Amino acid sequence: MRSGEFIEPRIDPAMPERKPLPRPDLRLRHVAIGPVAVFGASNFPLAFSVAGGDTASALAAGCPVVVKGHPAHPGTSELVGRAIVAAVAAAGLPEGVFSLLSGPSNELGGALVADPRIAAVGFTGSRGGGLALMRIAAGRPVPIPVYAEMSAINPVFLLPAALANRAETIATGFAGSLTMGAGQFCTNPGLIVAIDGEGLDRFLAAAATAVGAAPAATMLTPGIRDAYDRGTSALGNAGSVETLARGAEATANACQPALFAVDAADFIADDALGNEVFGASSLVVRCRDVAEMLAVAADLEGQLTATLHLDAGDHDLARQLLPVLEDKAGRILANGWPTGVEVCHAMVHGGPFPATSDPRSTSVGTLAIRRYLRPVCYQDLPAELLPDAVKPDNPYRLARLVDGVRQEAE
Amino acid sequence: MRSGEFIEPRIDPAMPERKPLPRPDLRLRHVAIGPVAVFGASNFPLAFSVAGGDTASALAAGCPVVVKGHPAHPGTSELVGRAIVAAVAAAGLPEGVFSLLSGPSNELGGALVADPRIAAVGFTGSRGGGLALMRIAAGRPVPIPVYAEMSAINPVFLLPAALANRAETIATGFAGSLTMGAGQFCTNPGLIVAIDGEGLDRFLAAAATAVGAAPAATMLTPGIRDAYDRGTSALGNAGSVETLARGAEATANACQPALFAVDAADFIADDALGNEVFGASSLVVRCRDVAEMLAVAADLEGQLTATLHLDAGDHDLARQLLPVLEDKAGRILANGWPTGVEVCHAMVHGGPFPATSDPRSTSVGTLAIRRYLRPVCYQDLPAELLPDAVKPDNPYRLARLVDGVRQEAE
Repeated sequence: MRSGEFIEPRIDPAMPERKPLPRPDLRLRHVAIGPVAVFGASNFPLAFSVAGGDTASALAAGCPVVVKGHPAHPGTSELVGRAIVAAVAAAGLPEGVFSLLSGPSNELGGALVADPRIAAVGFTGSRGGGLALMRIAAGRPVPIPVYAEMSAINPVFLLPAALANRAETIATGFAGSLTMGAGQFCTNPGLIVAIDGEGLDRFLAAAATAVGAAPAATMLTPGIRDAYDRGTSALGNAGSVETLARGAEATANACQPALFAVDAADFIADDALGNEVFGASSLVVRCRDVAEMLAVAADLEGQLTATLHLDAGDHDLARQLLPVLEDKAGRILANGWPTGVEVCHAMVHGGPFPATSDPRSTSVGTLAIRRYLRPVCYQDLPAELLPDAVKPDNPYRLARLVDGVRQEAE
Repeated sequence: MRSGEFIEPRIDPAMPERKPLPRPDLRLRHVAIGPVAVFGASNFPLAFSVAGGDTASALAAGCPVVVKGHPAHPGTSELVGRAIVAAVAAAGLPEGVFSLLSGPSNELGGALVADPRIAAVGFTGSRGGGLALMRIAAGRPVPIPVYAEMSAINPVFLLPAALANRAETIATGFAGSLTMGAGQFCTNPGLIVAIDGEGLDRFLAAAATAVGAAPAATMLTPGIRDAYDRGTSALGNAGSVETLARGAEATANACQPALFAVDAADFIADDALGNEVFGASSLVVRCRDVAEMLAVAADLEGQLTATLHLDAGDHDLARQLLPVLEDKAGRILANGWPTGVEVCHAMVHGGPFPATSDPRSTSVGTLAIRRYLRPVCYQDLPAELLPDAVKPDNPYRLARLVDGVRQEAE
């Protein structure tokens, strides 16, 4: 942000003597796309709500922000909103830079997205909610971009050598990632894919024990808990699905962890088995062989993450999986768990539909600023009228692309 | 392209000792979004058709391309298509890298955009055509990005000092830009905005003379000619519009240049007067004062370009107009004409809706490659499985952002 890299100035100086036609002076910078509507997530009242990633990215890009607070945490939303309003005043910014709308209604959110003054939308939530906002945005007289992060089951592929070497360790890590925070993470490992064999049997035994011993944890809202129960019931009642373990019996509003298993052919045949169950539920897909594992990978919808657990002996198989997974996910991990999302320069928290509505972007990390920018070119504008970012004397000391070659500020 | 800048590698190295949690190794690169459907423009059989800008950008990004050839130039399309197929074979690339579909039907184009294997769309053409493809793309089970360049009237603001100093010179330049190629450019100056006074009177007299003396020029297709006649008839018959000049009488398929004038209040009151008339037709909007000129600017739809003719005495007024025009257009010019579009690094050929469907992008220049890319992050992947662009030994010698700081290749 402070480096100004996001402005990405480009300068192609005039060539008045060029034949057959002279070249004008052309200067490009990136500017704010306009006012952004941000829909806070239910599951991150701080990191992805009123003052969350989308608000930070939009403000950093120079966009005013109107937040639709999530009804699951109205008090936190108001506290954070008041803090931002105070910061806006302290910084001497115009009041309109930030607003917070509270209320449970879909009508409120729909009206916000339909408002002609809104230029882009950031949303984190359910697939149904995201699709509804996408429809409203596409149906406007002036359609606008929607960055909706919606649903993912974050497949984890357990490769044979890794399973043979450390099935129990992987199972322990899996159960921890699955049940942390009652599994209410968009990066929760909701799908395990592995090839039948002794290693997988050991993993399943250890994972079933760990999940079976996991306590019930209170979920964020009754609505999330109801959706979790519906999702786990649907899986448990599917004829092709075996229930491997359920955790401690859930009391009111708590999530009873769940581990299911299904054969790969049945998984591929029934799209509903690939639906996200938000909470501590995961489905193990048992493959007969490598070909079936590749078929499961190819059958997946878009994902936020895809994970490989692998050892040196698995690299050949990994090389077959990676091109498929690159098409499916925004982030590919090895020998870890997807639930942690580092805020840094190289993070991609995004991915092909339905993980998000727009695979060209990330919602976490410094690259997220780009989603709220657009390029503008200035041709032969007198120097004193040029924006500072592209002025000849470069008052911001920005690195710039001059005739296609990067020049650091002197 | 050869520099690999478009890959934009970012590396945040592991911090195993970090407290409270270690940081994994994170590496980001940009990859091809997938197969792209390209719809050639009627008016640029070479530069924006089968082997045009969108095809070049998509291939450069690594995307296979399926072109829907424009029915206005099927022979040229086939010649160019065969040349590309030969080049694909000569380069040893897979045959599927490029395909050309010929045929006039909207059904063909619709089926192409609806095909689940297509990941993005590039289109140059009419507003109706672009909107139809946007609807199809948004209604797919997996929605995809559409880059549709559709319609623009490219407003030109003539500021008072410039008019006083050189009204006749500006009029000559205007008539040349307007009538070149029968006005069949998406950047044609279809709207002139100026403040009443002696300077504007001189401009109007000179422009009317020049346009009145302009020959009729044959248009690209009968359909374009019919649409031009409908558009100029609608303007000529509008009660508030005065016909200042018509060029030479048109024979079959030719375009009779046209210059109209309207008062600013009437222009603002009637949205239809802001519709694009594709061809050598322009409308002069006469403003009473600066406030009315600013109101006209604020009333405009999104544009590919906005132009100012200004002298030193106009800079204060230009400073009032520029923030408005930056919100409206992808390119802002001073003392030139928008019809020339330089292919370079700093060009933006794009702009807010309805100039295009997506203001975050350009269709001309090296930045255009970005529209067909998406970011992917690799977390803790073993070095030998990493893509070359983000391998520790940097075999491509790419400049990379390491911990947020740009490092040139050694």
